[in-house]
Amino acid sequence: MGKSYRESDLESMNPSEARGIIRRGEWKADTIKICIGYAKFNLVVLPQELAYEFLLFSERNPASAFVSEATDPGDPYLKLLAQNGDLRTDLPKYRVFKDGRLVDEPTDIKKYWRNDLVGFLIGAAPNLLSCLIDANVQHRMFGGYTSTIPTIPAGRFGCSHLVVGIMFKSTKDVVRSIQISSRLPVAHFAPLHIGDATGIGIMDIYKPDIFANTSSISPLEPGETPVFWGNGITPQRAAMEAKIPFMITHKPAHHFISDQRVEELATF
Amino acid sequence: MGKSYRESDLESMNPSEARGIIRRGEWKADTIKICIGYAKFNLVVLPQELAYEFLLFSERNPASAFVSEATDPGDPYLKLLAQNGDLRTDLPKYRVFKDGRLVDEPTDIKKYWRNDLVGFLIGAAPNLLSCLIDANVQHRMFGGYTSTIPTIPAGRFGCSHLVVGIMFKSTKDVVRSIQISSRLPVAHFAPLHIGDATGIGIMDIYKPDIFANTSSISPLEPGETPVFWGNGITPQRAAMEAKIPFMITHKPAHHFISDQRVEELATF
Repeated sequence: MGKSYRESDLESMNPSEARGIIRRGEWKADTIKICIGYAKFNLVVLPQELAYEFLLFSERNPASAFVSEATDPGDPYLKLLAQNGDLRTDLPKYRVFKDGRLVDEPTDIKKYWRNDLVGFLIGAAPNLLSCLIDANVQHRMFGGYTSTIPTIPAGRFGCSHLVVGIMFKSTKDVVRSIQISSRLPVAHFAPLHIGDATGIGIMDIYKPDIFANTSSISPLEPGETPVFWGNGITPQRAAMEAKIPFMITHKPAHHFISDQRVEELATF
Repeated sequence: MGKSYRESDLESMNPSEARGIIRRGEWKADTIKICIGYAKFNLVVLPQELAYEFLLFSERNPASAFVSEATDPGDPYLKLLAQNGDLRTDLPKYRVFKDGRLVDEPTDIKKYWRNDLVGFLIGAAPNLLSCLIDANVQHRMFGGYTSTIPTIPAGRFGCSHLVVGIMFKSTKDVVRSIQISSRLPVAHFAPLHIGDATGIGIMDIYKPDIFANTSSISPLEPGETPVFWGNGITPQRAAMEAKIPFMITHKPAHHFISDQRVEELATF
């Protein structure tokens, strides 16, 4: 029987310690409020034969799919983003897909690990919120949407960009949000769309179809402007749509927590 | 018999026209002073089976090896950086390597093209000089050096970073150069080293071993500071050191000229 923790215990914890708790199975819930200020990553694990097309998809669509680290085939340990990070155990929940269908949702993937698997770490939505909060930019996040903005396909991978919709109080806040995120690959760089959501195929911004932050959703106030960033679930969606034979991902909102501060990963 | 041109004819030409002249074999010399202000690219063409490792090498070492476009296997046409750009004909000179040895230096690669070849376009040194000149930053470029700064290897690819050494007149110019290049993947982002060159294994900055801009080389003046950026020849060097069976590159200084202005490719 492991120790049990409340979310508040992990809020200001250092990432190495938090990963240890997750690795021992003592934290199985989401990581949204864990290790605040540290960069969090979505995970896609694929057989090596698909790795090139996936990395190319990422290279062509950095605003949604920027790969911050790719592991060597068969090696579950990270080298850049975290010390002693183990992809098989250090996320609270995983999803295993076969032929595009969800077949398991385990708390570790030791039994699924193979010598030909490559792990890709992709910046997650909490990084974007983290840098906005740090900079005191007034905003509220409604959730994630399927847009009609096309990605540039690569081999079998292609779909439209999933986006995160954030409402900003004023023009000044919109401008600051663009300046700040542009420096941050892990926060999806600059937005993909500003203003009228119907222009990117979102007919009702009050009903996000991917995930909803219901407590923040209420009618737009005068002067409030919606801005849409790419989302790190896009490459998973592309992989699912391609119905590839075998893939492992994180369970949404159950991220890998790196040793790096979000701000530490700014490109300048 | 094609038309013949002087360098000054091509200096302010639009890239599409210049590529046509190169394609028809009417310009076979270097591209340093051609289409000034437009982004120029080094080329690495590899069989698909090596493409993943190469792209991963690039992803891990963006300051030297940032891939701005990767073509689909067998497709010689670019989709992003240029309209109707053909990798087989649009560079003035190529180099063909077998098992790491130079075997040919043709003006087109039509007879070498295969259905499994992938082309990688990597930002070239003239882009860095272009953005410094545009911003009126006082500098002189000595040339290219082999440094001891290690790259992060990926599969068979690994070597030390080759660097370009540029001397800046004042601290203000050093600072401006970092600010300006940080925004530009095609100008190799921020520098890898500032100051004493012996710290990165360069024993004589007056003797660049990769290429020399001899007309600029004279003793450093008081206050002048050397700054070293990554160089797009690094990935070629890595591929040569790996003695891979088949590779085609541009001949140094004979670049692919894109339709994009250097400044157009700034990340913010």
